Amino acid sequence: MRFETVSFLSDYGTTDEFVGVVHSVIRQIAPEVRVIDLTHQVPAHDIRAGGLTLARSAQYLAPGVVLAVVDPGVGTARKAIAVEVGDGESILVGPDNGLLAPAVAMVGGATRAVELTAEAYRFPAPGPTFAGRDVFAPAAAHLCNGVDLTELGPEIDPFSLTPAMIPITREEGDELIAEVLWTDQFGNLQLNVDPAEIESLGDRIELRFGTRSRTGIRHETYAEVAVGEIGLIVDSYGLVSLAVNRASAAEELVLYTGDEVRVVLSDDPDGRAPSAGTVTRVEIGAKP
Amino acid sequence: MRFETVSFLSDYGTTDEFVGVVHSVIRQIAPEVRVIDLTHQVPAHDIRAGGLTLARSAQYLAPGVVLAVVDPGVGTARKAIAVEVGDGESILVGPDNGLLAPAVAMVGGATRAVELTAEAYRFPAPGPTFAGRDVFAPAAAHLCNGVDLTELGPEIDPFSLTPAMIPITREEGDELIAEVLWTDQFGNLQLNVDPAEIESLGDRIELRFGTRSRTGIRHETYAEVAVGEIGLIVDSYGLVSLAVNRASAAEELVLYTGDEVRVVLSDDPDGRAPSAGTVTRVEIGAKP
Amino acid sequence: MRFETVSFLSDYGTTDEFVGVVHSVIRQIAPEVRVIDLTHQVPAHDIRAGGLTLARSAQYLAPGVVLAVVDPGVGTARKAIAVEVGDGESILVGPDNGLLAPAVAMVGGATRAVELTAEAYRFPAPGPTFAGRDVFAPAAAHLCNGVDLTELGPEIDPFSLTPAMIPITREEGDELIAEVLWTDQFGNLQLNVDPAEIESLGDRIELRFGTRSRTGIRHETYAEVAVGEIGLIVDSYGLVSLAVNRASAAEELVLYTGDEVRVVLSDDPDGRAPSAGTVTRVEIGAKP
Repeated sequence: MRFETVSFLSDYGTTDEFVGVVHSVIRQIAPEVRVIDLTHQVPAHDIRAGGLTLARSAQYLAPGVVLAVVDPGVGTARKAIAVEVGDGESILVGPDNGLLAPAVAMVGGATRAVELTAEAYRFPAPGPTFAGRDVFAPAAAHLCNGVDLTELGPEIDPFSLTPAMIPITREEGDELIAEVLWTDQFGNLQLNVDPAEIESLGDRIELRFGTRSRTGIRHETYAEVAVGEIGLIVDSYGLVSLAVNRASAAEELVLYTGDEVRVVLSDDPDGRAPSAGTVTRVEIGAKP
Repeated sequence: MRFETVSFLSDYGTTDEFVGVVHSVIRQIAPEVRVIDLTHQVPAHDIRAGGLTLARSAQYLAPGVVLAVVDPGVGTARKAIAVEVGDGESILVGPDNGLLAPAVAMVGGATRAVELTAEAYRFPAPGPTFAGRDVFAPAAAHLCNGVDLTELGPEIDPFSLTPAMIPITREEGDELIAEVLWTDQFGNLQLNVDPAEIESLGDRIELRFGTRSRTGIRHETYAEVAVGEIGLIVDSYGLVSLAVNRASAAEELVLYTGDEVRVVLSDDPDGRAPSAGTVTRVEIGAKP
Repeated sequence: MRFETVSFLSDYGTTDEFVGVVHSVIRQIAPEVRVIDLTHQVPAHDIRAGGLTLARSAQYLAPGVVLAVVDPGVGTARKAIAVEVGDGESILVGPDNGLLAPAVAMVGGATRAVELTAEAYRFPAPGPTFAGRDVFAPAAAHLCNGVDLTELGPEIDPFSLTPAMIPITREEGDELIAEVLWTDQFGNLQLNVDPAEIESLGDRIELRFGTRSRTGIRHETYAEVAVGEIGLIVDSYGLVSLAVNRASAAEELVLYTGDEVRVVLSDDPDGRAPSAGTVTRVEIGAKP
């Protein structure tokens, strides 16, 4: 089993040489491999943002190795891991802190996992480990070269790995309590709301943020949102998002990733079932 | 006819995963193709800036496919197009909104064009189309694989495509009314002024911006501009630009892309012919 | 002698098309070569920052050509050079302004050097030279293709090339006068201090910046630094750096690259030898 593509995501930014050094390490161990940069602008140490970015990308990535590093716990007891999905179609490499879990779940769960402990597949570091350069990049490159997953370290139960905690909506009175999952480059605000959750509502839906209230108007495309309107769009990932006309909804609404958005449901909440929790646990293990 | 390089420009930024996902889509359809990122920092929705960037780059790009996405009208009736230049040497893929026109004109005009409508060469989207991922990237990759332009959709008359509107200088009284076309990374201000337009003037030329006035001094290179001076340099694209010593002319002069700069001509404007319009229309069609 | 990798660093930023155009030029001259971007966010014209970034990366780069452009003197008499290291294992291409010196010294010094003057290996420019596009990228690509170093121009004595000036620590009274060499993406502050210089001190070390004073506490890893603490970490390049818990030490301490940090030594400075200068000269020539 050999791989030809490494898809690489991190919070390294591109100001320093970190990303280039990781590319260089892979180039030397596995010269034929192509490295595709997903993004390196995940906010520093923001595991949730990195995990969601990876999950949005997962179904579009070339089969191969996914190298993901958002790693505030580097140097602690947190494990470095490699997680196989699709019975070996792809392997995700990164820290065991929940970063990989949403993407792994998105593609059907892990079939195997190992802890990256084998010294033979690490780089010696002059100081404390720069894990991307010294542990994760060598592991990714050796996997591409056909080194078996189990040579990189002992197998571990995928269900023992750190899950991700993804906020889910809940109903309270006449409101659906939602959250901004992602603010994209254009300032569009992706909510954790499936279109089915607001299917029964009309074309004009009241939205509340803090003490403010605005009317969202359903549209099929961003371009249909009129000047001055708040558009409700099903975005290209299949989730409900807020958009304004050729400008940033985030700036106009002063909302950002993680902020609460309350969607006003019908006048009669009594007919609806009470909602569950506020966070869903996304395991790395595959459902049987 | 196969291509081995895709040159890719967009306003996607690199904070989100958009650029990486487009690379991934191309990698899966046309694994051998190399994707070269020109820039993804075109200001959001700024078709003119994207078009000028592409035009500056055009003559330096590897033959192949140019994938350009600055697309505020995504989801509207604006066409998705592919435009062949140089009798098939290269093909530009993007929205029909004027973005491609300056580069196409720069390399001699279009020889053929099609609208990208063939479902077989698109990706199905879970929500509204993410055009870069679902339409433009697949088209670019399939063209690299040797799919003929005309398989991607019906041919359209290049002259029916949206032109770009590029500002041109005009004379008013004793002034040449110019405009900042581009503020580069170093704060140099490229004007829409050909060196021939100011050839007859001396080495010290009065410049007016709003109510302010400064003297520009001609130099051959940026390094010759003395501290405190405003240098007039023919830049590496052959246009007149304003520069200061090892700092940002944009910051020092508080000028930016799109701002007006008035170049004071001789004291006797009567001898000069009246100037034409203020914008030139750049068609995509090839001149016969 | 052929090379397959170009490692590319510059202060071009990624807002303009400069980086993409350099990639395109290399792609056309040497199609099989892979270009790895180290970073293009070196602060504009900051030769020292670029040189240190290159030096940190040097030992991790794939053998081949290193293309480095931070070039405030472009267009002046400063030479364009190519410097061979490791008896031909790698060649560094860039301006002769000290930028290459720290990396060259790091890998053992230059074995040969030439000035890039041969017209046959340059691009003609429409205006003044865009040196990256017209001189350095063609030179890098032709070297990859097996063109011998000496075909690119006349050989020059490596010891005649511009050295880099790197600040070194000095002792004054009870203080070790150090400097911030680098502020990384996470706000960690790398000092020009070798761990051996503070080996004899305890685990709690007084630090002074301007009129302020803080206690630094030694830790093995970033994650061990407690909330509210200033951690002293040997970083992954083997130098002492300042870090805080999952946040930016630069922001918390209001310190940045180039700022002075004074490390308080013992109460009895009399036993120590007086220290040397404040800057070390890093030559490009190899030590015999």
